[in-house]
Amino acid sequence: MKRSLHTPLALSLLSLTVLLGGCGRPGGDGAGNGKSGKADANSAAVKTYVAPGQKDEFYLFYSGGHSGQIFVAGIPSMRHLITIPVFTPSPGTGYGFDEETKKMLGGYTWGDVHHPGLSQTDGKYDGRWLFVNDNANNRIARVDLRDFKTKQILGPIPNSSGNHGSSFVTENTENVLVATRFSVPLPKGRYAELNDYEKEFNGMVSGIKVDPQSGEMSVGWQILTPPFDWDLGSTGKGPSSGWAFWTSYNTEMAHDQLEVNASQRERDYAAVVNWKAAEAAVREGKGTDMDGVPVIDPAKVPGVLYFLPVPKSPHGIDVDPSGRWIAAGGKLQPTASVFDFEKIRVAIEKRDFEGEFRGVPILRFESVLEGEVPVGLGPLHTQYDGKGNAYTSLFIESVVTKWKLPPWTDEQKKDLSKAVIDKIPVHFNIGHLVIGGSDTKEPYGRYLVAGNKLSKGRHLSTGPSQPESSQLIDITGEKMAMLYETFTDPEPHFMQILKADVIKPIEVYPKAENKNPNAVWDAKDTSVTRSGNTVEVKALAIRSHFAPERIDAQVGDEVVVHLTNVEQTPDMIHGWGLAEHDINIIVDPGETKTVRFKVTKPGVFPFYCTNFCSALHQEMQGYLAVKPASTASTAPVPTGAGAVAAMP
Amino acid sequence: MKRSLHTPLALSLLSLTVLLGGCGRPGGDGAGNGKSGKADANSAAVKTYVAPGQKDEFYLFYSGGHSGQIFVAGIPSMRHLITIPVFTPSPGTGYGFDEETKKMLGGYTWGDVHHPGLSQTDGKYDGRWLFVNDNANNRIARVDLRDFKTKQILGPIPNSSGNHGSSFVTENTENVLVATRFSVPLPKGRYAELNDYEKEFNGMVSGIKVDPQSGEMSVGWQILTPPFDWDLGSTGKGPSSGWAFWTSYNTEMAHDQLEVNASQRERDYAAVVNWKAAEAAVREGKGTDMDGVPVIDPAKVPGVLYFLPVPKSPHGIDVDPSGRWIAAGGKLQPTASVFDFEKIRVAIEKRDFEGEFRGVPILRFESVLEGEVPVGLGPLHTQYDGKGNAYTSLFIESVVTKWKLPPWTDEQKKDLSKAVIDKIPVHFNIGHLVIGGSDTKEPYGRYLVAGNKLSKGRHLSTGPSQPESSQLIDITGEKMAMLYETFTDPEPHFMQILKADVIKPIEVYPKAENKNPNAVWDAKDTSVTRSGNTVEVKALAIRSHFAPERIDAQVGDEVVVHLTNVEQTPDMIHGWGLAEHDINIIVDPGETKTVRFKVTKPGVFPFYCTNFCSALHQEMQGYLAVKPASTASTAPVPTGAGAVAAMP
Repeated sequence: MKRSLHTPLALSLLSLTVLLGGCGRPGGDGAGNGKSGKADANSAAVKTYVAPGQKDEFYLFYSGGHSGQIFVAGIPSMRHLITIPVFTPSPGTGYGFDEETKKMLGGYTWGDVHHPGLSQTDGKYDGRWLFVNDNANNRIARVDLRDFKTKQILGPIPNSSGNHGSSFVTENTENVLVATRFSVPLPKGRYAELNDYEKEFNGMVSGIKVDPQSGEMSVGWQILTPPFDWDLGSTGKGPSSGWAFWTSYNTEMAHDQLEVNASQRERDYAAVVNWKAAEAAVREGKGTDMDGVPVIDPAKVPGVLYFLPVPKSPHGIDVDPSGRWIAAGGKLQPTASVFDFEKIRVAIEKRDFEGEFRGVPILRFESVLEGEVPVGLGPLHTQYDGKGNAYTSLFIESVVTKWKLPPWTDEQKKDLSKAVIDKIPVHFNIGHLVIGGSDTKEPYGRYLVAGNKLSKGRHLSTGPSQPESSQLIDITGEKMAMLYETFTDPEPHFMQILKADVIKPIEVYPKAENKNPNAVWDAKDTSVTRSGNTVEVKALAIRSHFAPERIDAQVGDEVVVHLTNVEQTPDMIHGWGLAEHDINIIVDPGETKTVRFKVTKPGVFPFYCTNFCSALHQEMQGYLAVKPASTASTAPVPTGAGAVAAMP
Repeated sequence: MKRSLHTPLALSLLSLTVLLGGCGRPGGDGAGNGKSGKADANSAAVKTYVAPGQKDEFYLFYSGGHSGQIFVAGIPSMRHLITIPVFTPSPGTGYGFDEETKKMLGGYTWGDVHHPGLSQTDGKYDGRWLFVNDNANNRIARVDLRDFKTKQILGPIPNSSGNHGSSFVTENTENVLVATRFSVPLPKGRYAELNDYEKEFNGMVSGIKVDPQSGEMSVGWQILTPPFDWDLGSTGKGPSSGWAFWTSYNTEMAHDQLEVNASQRERDYAAVVNWKAAEAAVREGKGTDMDGVPVIDPAKVPGVLYFLPVPKSPHGIDVDPSGRWIAAGGKLQPTASVFDFEKIRVAIEKRDFEGEFRGVPILRFESVLEGEVPVGLGPLHTQYDGKGNAYTSLFIESVVTKWKLPPWTDEQKKDLSKAVIDKIPVHFNIGHLVIGGSDTKEPYGRYLVAGNKLSKGRHLSTGPSQPESSQLIDITGEKMAMLYETFTDPEPHFMQILKADVIKPIEVYPKAENKNPNAVWDAKDTSVTRSGNTVEVKALAIRSHFAPERIDAQVGDEVVVHLTNVEQTPDMIHGWGLAEHDINIIVDPGETKTVRFKVTKPGVFPFYCTNFCSALHQEMQGYLAVKPASTASTAPVPTGAGAVAAMP
């Protein structure tokens, strides 16, 4: 196979800049890293220190990237609190080992979590759910913030490949909106030649409907798109209520050498979607069934989709808290393009288009643009503090730029570099950034977290596998101030910040809520029942023993254990690990879980409490005693000579 | 099934104490948590703050418990740095997804990591390896500190169940020593009645031999023991060089209701093992083969094993840096029992025994005891600062007690409460604690980390699944001072602290070291080769593309991808995730990995770089194009109508 590694000069220079950005920057920064900044460091130390026994003020929900999980930290300490398992089994909590969560994972053992989205009511975080996407396997999950557990995994979503452009929650959590990063021949499972990419491949924008009571997700509607690579997006509010926006980076519709071929056009298209109109169209029967989902062809259903030209290879588009201003950063152009939704509305009304593509109207760039703010090299994402300021991550420059949103003064309008207020270095190559509530009507302001893509040399060396760096920045003043740097496992992308007092999670599952028919709460109700080759066990765990302590089986049996943790005390968690059977379930107080496994080898296998519980935790154990498969299951099985007796 | 939940009054009171300890303690502590302590909190803040760009001084390696991994943090910041995957697959680093690590995991998807042990040369940490045990599946793993990767998993260890009492490294890493927590009928796989527990079940102490060059582990020898439950241990040095020690907590040999039945005797036995004598005995052919391992019957090979009576249900035994003093905490007696190895040596020489059990001599308690220090309620483990002080974790009291090692003054000898120097509250119910190098000849002192078992209410609520709390304590002064509290995923047990400058990990795999025959370094050498139903791909990853970008296959094929990351730049990591195939491999700079999978469904499946790498990371993708299984594999496969064309 022959293939040139040569890339155009411009890209080589870009790579060089990235490398220099990553390696050449000196260590000094706003946190008093240099000798002269000792006082600053002390101040940052005190501002971020949360004394033992005191609590952080905010939750930080990091996406865990290809770890498949959500990481939860506290702000301002940036201490890791817990990992919420979502798409990857986690023996630490038993997730993916019991029957229910194993089924939910659907045979997958990982996911690629990118953009968590908190549920909203009236455009504000309501603390009910956290949605997260799996880019790899085209799924979306819902975490319940009542107990911090994953409750549903939807997908793989039909007609959709590369669920990167999500999870964008609408103002009242009517929908979680999703767009495809990759295009494939549709319906999925169909083979087509890559040379026929433009004709045979398609992307999709999907509305994932959320039940307002239960949070249950289902695929509501889809809009077919050309085979662009959809990227990050956001949802409207205020004047843009009912609308959603995604940028794309491959309107060239290239299918190979994307690093070159998808960077040809001056402007790519953002999708401007009227999701309320899409919902109405589907209600009116204007969708066509594809793999069980009503799919809208936007050429045939006008008003659901418009294209907005955005310079150049943008990576995201962010609606401000007022719902009027929309900022997009073209990563190969050093500006943030600011669009005015009022102008978009007027342009649509007046059909002020610069053409159409496959029947979809293209908004006239000049008519909807408010201005281009020279924020710096490699702008990606923008967040807002609710006080009229925007903060854009600059990947190549490794800084965050603070700038003023419109309305601008005449002076600023003449020279938009005057709208730039401050820049702060971050380390290194920032991707996402987050301000609490930036995607709501009422941002918290105060803190900004920079999600840096490369941490090289910023931490004790951990070998070739390096952690990711995140930095906490104080945004209460005119100038930004660096407070703290922390590290996480691969690989945070977007994050969400939630004020701690918005939620009050339960810490015990109330016994009265446990409707599991196999739950047992008293030792007298526990049982081991054989039916054919199935041994069914109703068991309980309590400080400091299991009941039953003994399970008899024989080779070939299937054993089903229903384990109830009868505790009603917070943090009194029990585990049930079985030696050499790859089984570990963890039951939280008041919870019942079921595990099912085949018995394939004779012997006596201890099981024990794997999650520390009490002074006599170490004594909390029992045995699975497995006889060899015998011809007559009721006959006693010879035990053989004891090991000591066998010694010479 | 009927079974009384009633436990004796003493145990109920114990549980009550534990509960009160967990819930009733006020938040105030040494870190200025109260109003009057503001200055202290500021001082602790500054002492633990590591400014962005600066580095921690020490590594902290936490065992990850039933998460199956090792967590690495920095001291004094206590920031999480990375997770080293050991016994559980980890898509974040691709561990367990490529062929090599998948094979190493041996079909298991979790482990229960308890006690990491650093390799030593001449009784000091040499920074080569970290050994960790899997209590659940009786394994032991070696992590190489050159690259922070798991290199070997040994096990399940024959004749051994419940590998809890490890990983205890000898002075020159000749052995990692292991003892069983659970006893089972031996050899494993044999069924016996639990009622015959005393006769048919056995425990084992094992010497895992370590190759001095490669670190490769193999089972060297085993010593058969009665069916006690062996617990924590440590290895000798100085006068006790060549010896090792473990406590046990079930010399009652109970096999049910252990929380009651294993707490009957006043004293349990510690094992005093002459591992050099055991090695010699095996060399002399005194072992008997059991499941491929030479097993020593201590009744027939005198001098390898002695029993040491220890009050009461002890949980661990720790040799001090001088090798002379050995402290054991009986968790149901409020003292640390201090034994003198010189006295043990003399007692063995003089055969000063109080009897024997199954042919193993029992050392006379009074003859070998130096004294019992009243440290407080629920003593578990003891660490040393190298300045003559010991620090014991008190589970029930939730404190760490600092006390003076012998030699004691006459006044102290008369009243050993005068050997107690200080107590500091920890939150809550501390299990293990660690001082850097406590298990070597030269402890670092300075910091102590308390591994607390319950964190209830100390952190932002995370629902019923709660994190574990660890606290950093300054031990440089006469009085201990609380500095910081941090949280981790379930569930740290023991930890190790390593001075950062002891190691200098590589951050790139040098190209010259890559001997993988399937590695390719230039696009012209990449290939896709079909042989029967196997499609073999030699691929490379480089900023910002894969070569090849396209792989053709058809349903029924097995695809084997060898992927080389040709980068030689730190932190330039690439991933290869394949949509809807549950495949994700991660290649560090200079690394080659192989993944193998069956193609079971037709369609076009994107693969993409899952680990952020560069400005054009998002563009780094390709396709696996799968045709349906056809009768003639060379015939072109109809592509079907395009999705757009199919719309009405």
